[in-house]
Amino acid sequence: MKITLDTKILIVGLGLMGGSYAMALSKQGYKVRAITTTQKSIDYAVEHNLILSGTTTPEPKLIADADLIIFALYPHTFLEWIEEYGHWITQGTLITDVTGVKTAIIDRIDALLPDNVEFIASHPMAGREVYGVKNATDQIFKDANFIVTPTKRNSEDACKTCEQLGHILGFATVTRLTPQEHDDMIGFLSQLTHCIAISLMTCNDSPNLENYTGDSFRDLTRIARINDEMWSELFLLNKENLISHMEKFELEFDKLKQALMDNDIKSVREMMRKSTERRAKFDQN
Amino acid sequence: MKITLDTKILIVGLGLMGGSYAMALSKQGYKVRAITTTQKSIDYAVEHNLILSGTTTPEPKLIADADLIIFALYPHTFLEWIEEYGHWITQGTLITDVTGVKTAIIDRIDALLPDNVEFIASHPMAGREVYGVKNATDQIFKDANFIVTPTKRNSEDACKTCEQLGHILGFATVTRLTPQEHDDMIGFLSQLTHCIAISLMTCNDSPNLENYTGDSFRDLTRIARINDEMWSELFLLNKENLISHMEKFELEFDKLKQALMDNDIKSVREMMRKSTERRAKFDQN
Repeated sequence: MKITLDTKILIVGLGLMGGSYAMALSKQGYKVRAITTTQKSIDYAVEHNLILSGTTTPEPKLIADADLIIFALYPHTFLEWIEEYGHWITQGTLITDVTGVKTAIIDRIDALLPDNVEFIASHPMAGREVYGVKNATDQIFKDANFIVTPTKRNSEDACKTCEQLGHILGFATVTRLTPQEHDDMIGFLSQLTHCIAISLMTCNDSPNLENYTGDSFRDLTRIARINDEMWSELFLLNKENLISHMEKFELEFDKLKQALMDNDIKSVREMMRKSTERRAKFDQN
Repeated sequence: MKITLDTKILIVGLGLMGGSYAMALSKQGYKVRAITTTQKSIDYAVEHNLILSGTTTPEPKLIADADLIIFALYPHTFLEWIEEYGHWITQGTLITDVTGVKTAIIDRIDALLPDNVEFIASHPMAGREVYGVKNATDQIFKDANFIVTPTKRNSEDACKTCEQLGHILGFATVTRLTPQEHDDMIGFLSQLTHCIAISLMTCNDSPNLENYTGDSFRDLTRIARINDEMWSELFLLNKENLISHMEKFELEFDKLKQALMDNDIKSVREMMRKSTERRAKFDQN
């Protein structure tokens, strides 16, 4: 399937991410409809030309008519939705998602879907520290990565369609990873960093720190403002990878602490030089 | 002493910080001279109107003539310099510094100085990930904090002069802390954050991570590019405070890890809500 201006796109869940998808697509003339829980979000999205129309009640006809359904829900809501309404999705409809973890989701969704409905999972690695359709903006995609995570059950055609979606949305890069590679990578780059930011933000109760805070502390704690409902769910669904990365980080941090305790300036400087060299690579991209 | 356009200012050490001081002062018409190790740095600074003149050889007359001497050296170089040339500083000259740690320095400097030469310590909480006078810019001061750290030996007049210097340099805020308060605060806000960034950058050797890295990881590791010679010295001079903060961070991080291992979603969410609430306070400033 090639996505064209005639493709009937249905977004389920008009939050920050669903709303931002809707904005990027509608701006370019694609036909976007939506199902979400509150009429207020639909009214806002229609008023701001993010969608053509929407409903708070999943309707069989709307679902059956869709060529491409994008699920922008929390993982457990995604599963519950497919369990309850998945049988209304018809053969030939392609479905994708925005879920931040993959292995814990894909097999369970596949098992619930009707035969001949293909789910090609993907993860838009973009976000903001604010929520809801009112904060939606397609600007979050422009420097970000879109990752398609096919399994052996996926067709090459579905992978290509999903990659096309990533390009239409305006992502800087569109790549493929296995669900396992994805979850390992996300456990390190995204989930571990959030765990660090949270712990840094909560480990010192001294008042007035904000009066002395420079860029370093601000940079390290920007992501300490976190949607606890969504992220706690994502952490637990990927906890094996996450805990393994937390442990590797702890070992390294402890190595540095021990070197300081031992006045072992040589080891301290070695770690600093290694980190400097590795970080420089990230600036070249 | 009030700093005026006639005040003879001498900067010892024309690196990034000394050079940035020189730029901010000279731009406003203050008379700045410098002593530094390489002729190249002096030539560059004269050419770019950062200083009136400079020398690589500490000259008794230049030092004796100065009303205000600013030491922008590494801690051990600062101590060595005062030990070797400090006797040339004359009564009434005020000296200050830029050193990132205070308790380990102040008493030792005071003990080496001639009687009637007052050292009022201060710390410009500003910097860049690049070094040398060629990267000097007074722009680094405009959103930053300037902290004066007097001891009981300091006169109120010297404190005021040093605060005036902070304002002239263009710092957003100028405040006072005791050396002990300063070192505790800096151990947490600056040194702990650098230890975290270094460990995060070195704890995972997977290739190609930079292809998937989003803003979170970039933000947390920006300061992992670090001048190992300077920072290892500062870490060790403040190691009691730093190690204590590292341990508090480790405890909190471990609490989060344990909650994940126990599937204790309530505790995970509680930590996230606490971090969100605390971080919000930092955005109001």
